[in-house]
Amino acid sequence: MADADSENTGIAGQDWATASAQPQYHAAVVDLLGALAYGELAAFERLAEDAKLAPSLADKAALARMASAEFHHFEQLDQRLLEIDAHPTEAMEPFAKALDEFHRQTAPSDWLEGLVKAYVGDSIASDFYREVAARLDTDTRALVLAVLDDTGHGNFAVEKVRAAIEADPRVGGRLALWARRLMGEALSQAQRVVADRDALSTMLVGGVADGFDLAEVGRMFSRITEAHTKRMAALGLAA
Amino acid sequence: MADADSENTGIAGQDWATASAQPQYHAAVVDLLGALAYGELAAFERLAEDAKLAPSLADKAALARMASAEFHHFEQLDQRLLEIDAHPTEAMEPFAKALDEFHRQTAPSDWLEGLVKAYVGDSIASDFYREVAARLDTDTRALVLAVLDDTGHGNFAVEKVRAAIEADPRVGGRLALWARRLMGEALSQAQRVVADRDALSTMLVGGVADGFDLAEVGRMFSRITEAHTKRMAALGLAA
Repeated sequence: MADADSENTGIAGQDWATASAQPQYHAAVVDLLGALAYGELAAFERLAEDAKLAPSLADKAALARMASAEFHHFEQLDQRLLEIDAHPTEAMEPFAKALDEFHRQTAPSDWLEGLVKAYVGDSIASDFYREVAARLDTDTRALVLAVLDDTGHGNFAVEKVRAAIEADPRVGGRLALWARRLMGEALSQAQRVVADRDALSTMLVGGVADGFDLAEVGRMFSRITEAHTKRMAALGLAA
Repeated sequence: MADADSENTGIAGQDWATASAQPQYHAAVVDLLGALAYGELAAFERLAEDAKLAPSLADKAALARMASAEFHHFEQLDQRLLEIDAHPTEAMEPFAKALDEFHRQTAPSDWLEGLVKAYVGDSIASDFYREVAARLDTDTRALVLAVLDDTGHGNFAVEKVRAAIEADPRVGGRLALWARRLMGEALSQAQRVVADRDALSTMLVGGVADGFDLAEVGRMFSRITEAHTKRMAALGLAA
């Protein structure tokens, strides 16, 4: 997907020991892992919260299982931040506000909205981190791809949402609007983070060594938006 | 502590294959594991909920870690229920109402109340299940003791609550009242469960083979209450 970028930067062919000699790259990775770690912790909280809306004990247990999987991803990131001599809570702190604000602005009002939110949110975050992973050193890339490993949430959400729309097609209209609101709010918070975090932004747009490449960022956002549209269609929702 | 009981029943010397030949014992164990499993799921939810009240990111992560540990206990119980041909959600269902009602009646209004509740609740539940474990067949006992393994919550709560009382002694009075309310509500819900579930109650009061032994139940409740009083004193609270 973003293979072209990895060739651009040179970082993608290096391991952490070599790549992290560049202080700007080191700072960018701490930022990235901090953002990802806080995202996992927030996902844990969100799924645990949604578990309370579950219509059955089996659904509740399924959501608790996914929450717990997110927590284990968080633990791996937390551990890695310690290994590279970063302070995990300090690394997460800069991203807490934007993510909390996103979750505050998009509190689901029922079980289905919660499922759509978790699905849309996880998928967009996952697409984004996969794009970023291609620009990372080999060690950091392996970790990022490992914590993006599917927690099974996607299939669960798709199955439940499709069944609900089949049972009552009007539900589809309401959830399509909801998914659009989620995408809008996610983009607006992402812009805020990118504007605030120089090291991270510089890495995202073409790699530390190559400076800004706004055209490539534009293409990345197009790819993520396209994938979102396809997923919504698969769910039975017009994006 | 309850070694005398294990000698009474004979069950405590048997493995599951032998002991479960008695249908009443089989039913009692399904009840017990169902209650324990729902308790772990509810504990997961409660800790995840309390994580939102955490005053710092490090505290939030600590609570999420404990919640995740409770979920893994739940998974072991869920797995065991399947192994003994029980339906996990059906086994949990009879206990959901009492536990949900307990949590509804005792929603903490701040971080410290949440910590005291988790500590008091976990400790009482743990004391109770340890008493019961002594009456169980060897296989079920090993599982019950394994899932009672400390999730580290106790020490964490004690440390934080003691520090808060040292910083402001008036906090102690408020939390002591809160702990008394928790104990009262726990006992009232426990009575309701015992009244509803014949197989479980029969096992609790002296073992299936030996019929009711109310004096022993009385002693068990005294031991649990005494241990609670000691813990509250250690926390700096008058019970």
